[in-house]
Parts: sequence; structure tokens; C-alpha cells
Amino acid sequence: MPAPSTASTLPLSQTKPPKHDISGSNMEAAWADFVAIVGQDNVSTLEADLEHHAGSDYSSHTLSQTERTFLIVYPVSTEEVSAIMKICHKRRIPVTGYSGGTSLEGHFAPTRGGICVDFARMNKVLELHKEDMDVVVQPGVGWELLNEELAKDNLFFPPDPGPGAMIGGMVGTGCSGTNAYRYGTMREWVLSLTVVLADGTVIKTRQRPRKSSAGYDLTKTFIGSEGTLGLVTEAVLKVTTKPNTTSVAVTTFGSVRQAADCVAKVVSEGVPIAAIEILDDVQMKCVNASKMTDRVWPEASTLFFKFAGTPSGVKEQVNIVRRLAKDTGSKTFEFAKTAQEQTELWGARKAALWSVMAMREKDTDHVWTGDVAVPISRLPDIIEETKEDITKSGLFAAIVGHVGDGNFHTVMLYNEAQRRDAEEVIHRMVKRAVEMEGTVTGEHGVGLVKRDYLGHELGETTVDAMRKLKLAFDPLCLLNCDKIVRIQKPKPGEITEW
Amino acid sequence: MPAPSTASTLPLSQTKPPKHDISGSNMEAAWADFVAIVGQDNVSTLEADLEHHAGSDYSSHTLSQTERTFLIVYPVSTEEVSAIMKICHKRRIPVTGYSGGTSLEGHFAPTRGGICVDFARMNKVLELHKEDMDVVVQPGVGWELLNEELAKDNLFFPPDPGPGAMIGGMVGTGCSGTNAYRYGTMREWVLSLTVVLADGTVIKTRQRPRKSSAGYDLTKTFIGSEGTLGLVTEAVLKVTTKPNTTSVAVTTFGSVRQAADCVAKVVSEGVPIAAIEILDDVQMKCVNASKMTDRVWPEASTLFFKFAGTPSGVKEQVNIVRRLAKDTGSKTFEFAKTAQEQTELWGARKAALWSVMAMREKDTDHVWTGDVAVPISRLPDIIEETKEDITKSGLFAAIVGHVGDGNFHTVMLYNEAQRRDAEEVIHRMVKRAVEMEGTVTGEHGVGLVKRDYLGHELGETTVDAMRKLKLAFDPLCLLNCDKIVRIQKPKPGEITEW
Repeated sequence: MPAPSTASTLPLSQTKPPKHDISGSNMEAAWADFVAIVGQDNVSTLEADLEHHAGSDYSSHTLSQTERTFLIVYPVSTEEVSAIMKICHKRRIPVTGYSGGTSLEGHFAPTRGGICVDFARMNKVLELHKEDMDVVVQPGVGWELLNEELAKDNLFFPPDPGPGAMIGGMVGTGCSGTNAYRYGTMREWVLSLTVVLADGTVIKTRQRPRKSSAGYDLTKTFIGSEGTLGLVTEAVLKVTTKPNTTSVAVTTFGSVRQAADCVAKVVSEGVPIAAIEILDDVQMKCVNASKMTDRVWPEASTLFFKFAGTPSGVKEQVNIVRRLAKDTGSKTFEFAKTAQEQTELWGARKAALWSVMAMREKDTDHVWTGDVAVPISRLPDIIEETKEDITKSGLFAAIVGHVGDGNFHTVMLYNEAQRRDAEEVIHRMVKRAVEMEGTVTGEHGVGLVKRDYLGHELGETTVDAMRKLKLAFDPLCLLNCDKIVRIQKPKPGEITEW
Repeated sequence: MPAPSTASTLPLSQTKPPKHDISGSNMEAAWADFVAIVGQDNVSTLEADLEHHAGSDYSSHTLSQTERTFLIVYPVSTEEVSAIMKICHKRRIPVTGYSGGTSLEGHFAPTRGGICVDFARMNKVLELHKEDMDVVVQPGVGWELLNEELAKDNLFFPPDPGPGAMIGGMVGTGCSGTNAYRYGTMREWVLSLTVVLADGTVIKTRQRPRKSSAGYDLTKTFIGSEGTLGLVTEAVLKVTTKPNTTSVAVTTFGSVRQAADCVAKVVSEGVPIAAIEILDDVQMKCVNASKMTDRVWPEASTLFFKFAGTPSGVKEQVNIVRRLAKDTGSKTFEFAKTAQEQTELWGARKAALWSVMAMREKDTDHVWTGDVAVPISRLPDIIEETKEDITKSGLFAAIVGHVGDGNFHTVMLYNEAQRRDAEEVIHRMVKRAVEMEGTVTGEHGVGLVKRDYLGHELGETTVDAMRKLKLAFDPLCLLNCDKIVRIQKPKPGEITEW
């Protein structure tokens, strides 16, 4: 046996393929172990369940037929999750965690079989500390439901990713949404996590105070780790008071560059907007076609602004934005005078993704939602170049984004014949972002689909450091193996050329 | 040789003492290596330098005579730091990083000798991206100087720890200061880090966009790691626009509990204050005695509020705070009508620490600044109980704190004869914080002095996970060894009873 490495990183060339045991006899024996822990009713081997837990229509990862777990287990407590992981550790069984299943980059594809741990039964809001402005929840709580609960006390939890997302997965991807410009991402809203590690050890990363510098920031280490370092079984989240006045404004432009220029101006003047969203002309066409809103919109590049604060503060902000929009060539500017008008105006933003989904003509049509972010000064360039590239490719794609953060998505329709072209458009968009000092993903995470881009964005040594971190906490590579970083050399020709 | 561990954590019982080589011959040979890298003028072995780099008057750690490095090296670039670390890795020489030297818990005590890397020559603001609202700096840049530079463009960088602190150390402790209530801590203001790891590998944790979910959050892993995981050689910091209107209010109370109650009310009403600071009656006595401000203050528990926003917003906030202060029993309420009055009122807050330092009568008198944080609802309890305990102990100590975050400091005078009593007061304060679901340190960090408290706050398994992380990036334990977590079993009787 060689001496233990003294290096600070783990290059891919020095990895060895993980040794799992997913033999029939081992899995059957484990099945009995799991039944003893959670009861027969809470283990499923139904084919429909297995398929549902392997991927989704939203995901850009094309699932292979072999990507199935042997069973799904539904624990109800941290202790049960720990007992399950101890079995898997002893038996060398890979494990994929599952909560809302809304992620986009193949995050929960069970590439190496094994089992799926579904947190559906761990769906309780455990404690609300109103005075301390925090709430203790289980991973199976959805953010929409949580906000309904919090609203009773005039509180709210800002991160707003896709509908259906749950706290477990939101921690996993370090998600955000339209409120991130004002409030920040999950990273800013999680105080503490209870995590079951790969060998079944339970750790709690922090206590509840707002500030702490007590040792390594394990909370942040687990946020965005996509289930590869541990399974989150409890989270303490910060909450805040609901803003007392809000408004919405919508303004259209002659070109996507003008709209993006307007965003850059608003951001650099430091106007404390709650949210700034862009929808391009294609996206607005889809909103009209879907008839999901009551009105017909101009089919032009459009900015949606959300304002929050005191009545006079909101009024002041609306006026600044109106002036900046005019300076950058806006054609129309409308702001909501009533709560109903707010809902109506914001309704188009809400309908964006679904309206593109509604454009699918056949079951074999797919939607690919790609996500990059750049420093705000490069936003007009990247949006314009990406739009031109889409047009050239002949594909149908809308652009919609959280542009205040320099973050936008393409929402692309494609069928099987177009898959290759779609991949290439996304590839060029990602490359463009990296060349503009941007990131390959602003909020969706890396999963399977984007992991080979990481080295281009961050450099190979940084990826090697990430790999060292992964193997430190999970030496047998049991937890959501293959996500974020490769832990095994790729087959020849497997990696697309940069 | 035993098989590599498959565990996710590293308990102290399974550690082996690190094997360093600080023999005379090895150090002499390394000296020549360093001279070849940085030049003769940038390596120092002067006794005064070595003493100055081992500890400070501020620190609560009592330095032992053996805690000296063999030399100080002053690199000028990431490449030089990498070359230095490669030498130390090959020669098994321990390394302590040094920038401002203002930390408090023995953070840079060279417990195992070796060398000190001082970042004094890496003190440049490298790039300011005004449109993107970020700035690229070296670790030897002080926050005060940085803010002078940024002010020319109406920008500022919020974290405001002790005077003299520099970016390298501020990243190291994950510091904050009076602005944290409104703006958050270092964790929220660092976009990206360039880090030299223990074996000399250089990594860059992120690119510059505001949002990214590209892999593990290594940026946050290094923030607060106290120089134990790598040496920061470059940082990209977010900056923001200076608020256009500010004001200051000062209000006094009959008891420290009333003052703390007022804070809890202001926080739970969600009033967007910029800062809320408490100074107790003892602290106000010191401010008066020091004559550092022009006026004589009531010697009572006092709250200092900072407001920022639009003129009408600030006015609104002042009125809400005035009402809440009255409700909780305030005796006086004064707010600044001019910029000069703001400076005058805030002056007392600024003078707090120095005014206690000024109370020292002899060279052998020391100041011990302890720091804990609790969930805001427990703040009145912990401040009151701590104050009673100080009174009982017969020691002289003021209380001053960033109370909006549930975070406060005791600033205690003691001489050698009182050292034991002072230790015990701090010990009880820390224990009290943990029992109230608080943290042993809100912003100072763990260093040497607080590391044995971590297990009580977080549980031993969490500390074991931190130890695994440390050894993953630094298998030879070269970087600021012994800080944050022990990597070697303590001698009998070394750990104080909880």
C-alpha cells in the first residue's frame, strides 16, 4: 500500500474507481435492513417510483435506462437517516437524496444505482422563533408552503426557486430566484444544518445566533454541495418581515441590448430595487400565445421591476427607474397603482417558463433551461451574442433572467433530432460566460451536465481541491457520486472539446 | 500501514502528532531557499521582528517564550508565496500567515515555530471595477485605507473590524463590526479568493459575478479558516454605494436589561437600522474618564443607533426607534441634526475600546476582549447575568456590543494576579452563551483560546468533521497548526473542565 498523500488536492489522474456493491444479494439483504429501520410501508421498489425518482422532464440530462435505484426509502427522522447511511456504508451502497425533484442538470440521476432516500415524510416546520426571526424545518418542506405559514406572522423567507422546490434540494443547489437581487441566495438565509454524513455520523453545523465565527463554516460547505457531502435532515433558516409597501413596473425596449444597458445603469446607481427581471421578445411572444395572462403584451424586450420599502421610498425608486429607462431608450413604462395591477403585471413574469413549456407540440419535444451569470458590465454583450447565436442555430429559445445579478436563462425547445444543436448552443453560451469572467451556473448548480465546465471556469487545481473535499467527507464515494466533480477518469471521447 | 480510513470525520483519538522538522540545519537551509525566492532584504531574523510577529497586547493568549518563528519572510506575489510553501512542504516546516496582527485569541501564535509569512508587501488595490461594483485587492490592504480609495467613487466596503485590520486577517476570522447588522459580515462581501494551499498549489475559488453555484463554495470554506487551510494572496470584494443620508441617535436607560429589551424590540419589528450598539454604564464611565470626546455623557446603559437611507426613510426610522425606546423605559433620546453632531455622537462609540485601554495603570495591566453571540431573544438575559457575574468577581469590565446581531464583548482589565479570575469570568460567559443556543464567538474567531469550547457549542462529531477538513487540505499540518481544532491529544489536565 502506498504512503498516504501529502498533497492538498486530488487530481483526477490519481483517483481510483469507487468500489460499490450493488449485487442482487447485497441489495436484497440491505432491503431487509431498511425495512427493519423504517417499516415495510416506507420502502418502495415499484417501477413507476423508481422511474419518477431518476429524472424529470425539466432536466437537461438524458437519462440512460441503467440509471435506476434498487429501491426508494422514506425515513422520518435524523436517526433513521443515520441508520440507513450506516447500512449503506457497511454494504458499500451508493445513495442519492431526493426532495422536490425540480433540479435541472441531472442532479439526482442515480448513475451508479444503489438506493434513493426520499424526504417526503420529513416535511414538518418544527419550530418558529418569532422574536429571533428564524424557523427550524425538515428538508421535505416546500418554500411556497413555508411562506404560507410564515405569512400568518407577517414574516417571509426570500429564496424563490422553481415551484415545487423543497428546502433539502434548495440547500443542495444553493438556489435563489427573483428575490436574490435584494435579499441574496440560500447562502445568506441558512443559519445552521443538521447533516448525516456518508458513514452515518450526525453533525450540526451551527447554533442559532445571527452571527458566529466558531470554526470552519461547515454550513456553507454543505450549501451547494448537491447531496455529495451529506444528507441534510434539518435546517435553521433566517426569516424576515414582509416589506410594507411593494410595487411593480414594466418597461419595454427596442432591443435586448437597450434593456440590458438599463439594468446595468440601475445596478451601478445602487437603486435598492427588490428584483429586476428581463424577458426578451421571444419570451413575450410565448406569454401572449399561452394566454396565461389577461392582457396582450408588446412583443419586445421587457424589464420587470419589483419595488419594496416605505411608500415614499417606493415612489422615489419608481421615478429613478423611469428616468434611467428613458435614458436607455425605453418605449413604454407602466407601473402598478393597485395590488391587483401588481399581480397582473408580475403575472407575465410568473408565466414565463410555463408559457414556453406550453409551446411544445409533441411529447418528444423537450425544454432545456440553461443558466449562466457574468459581471454586470458584460450583461448586454452576453445576452446580445447569445440571442444572435440562437437565431443562427434555427432553434426556438427565449431569454429570461434575474438580470440584477448578471444571471439569465435560455429556455429552449428541442426535439430528439435537435438535441445536438441544443447542446452546442448551451456549450457556446457557457464558454462565452467564462470568457467574460462569468460562471457556468448562477443558481442551477453543476450536477452531471456542467461538471466538465468547472475546470474551464475555475482552473483544474480548484476542481482538484473540490475533489479532495468530496473524498475527505465521503471516502467511499457513496453520496450522489459523479455529481459536481468526476471521481473517475472519463472514457476516451467522453468529454466534449472546449 | 493500516488501510485508509473510510470514515467521514477524524476524532482526536485517532490523530497522530504532526512530524515537523525545525532543526537548525533544516531551517538554515530553508533560509537560503527563501532568500533565493524573495531576496535577502525580504527575510528577517531580527529578534524584535520575531517577537512582534508572535503576539500582541490585545491578545487574550499568554504567549510562551518558545512561541517564536525562526524567521519572517515578506513575499510580493502569489508565485512567491507558492514557492515558499513548496519549500516548507518539502522540508516539513510549519507556517503562520500574518497581516494586520489585530486578532484577539492567539490566532498567530507560532506554537510550533517554523516561519511567519508577512503580507506587508502585498498591499495593493489591484483593480477597481466600478460598473461591476467589485474590487480586487491583496491581503495586506487595510480596510480603512481601502475605504479612503473607494470613497473617491462614492463607494464603500462595509466590514469594519478593529483599526489596523487587513483583508488577509479579515478573511481569516470572517470578521464584521458595527455595520454587520445592516450589511452582513465578511462572508457576504468576499466574491472570490486566490489561495496558496499547504503544498504550494494555487487555486482561485470563483470568478467575479455576483451569483454562482458552480461547485463547492470554497470561498466560504476559506473565510473564517484562520489561516489553517491556505494563505490568501488575492481577494475580490463586493463594494456598494455609500448611503446618501445617515443619522445617529443615542438613548440611555436605567438598566442594561431595559437597553437590551429595546434592541430586541427594534430587531423584531424589522426596522432597517444600519447599526445598533450597546455601551454599558461602566463603558460610559471610561469614555468620560478618557476625555476622548468633547462632552460628558450620562454614565448609564446607552444605545447608539446609526441610520442610513433616504431623508424621509431616516426620519421615519428615528421616530420608530424613539417610540420603542420610550416603551422600554429610555431616560434620554438625542439624535444628530448635522453631520458634525453625528460625528460627535458616534465618537463615544468609536472611543469605547481605547477608553478602557486607557484605564490601565501599569504595564502589567492587560485588557481581555471576549465575544459571544446569542439568539436576539436571549440577549437581555445574557447581558444582565454576565454583568452580575463581573460585579461579583470584583474585576473591572465594560460591556460593548453589536447587539442587533445578538453579539457583545466584555472588555476586561486584569493584572497577572487576576488572570485566573478573568479566565473564569470569560469561561462562564461562554458557557452561558452556549446554554442559550449561542456561539462562543460572534466575530473574533476561535484561535488557540476558544478551540476547546467548540465541542460544547457544536458537538464533538462536528469538531471531528472540521478536523477531517483541515487534514484533507493540509495533511502535514503545516498551516497555523493548533488553531481552531486540536490535531494532537492534549496533555493530562490541559483542558479546563466545562
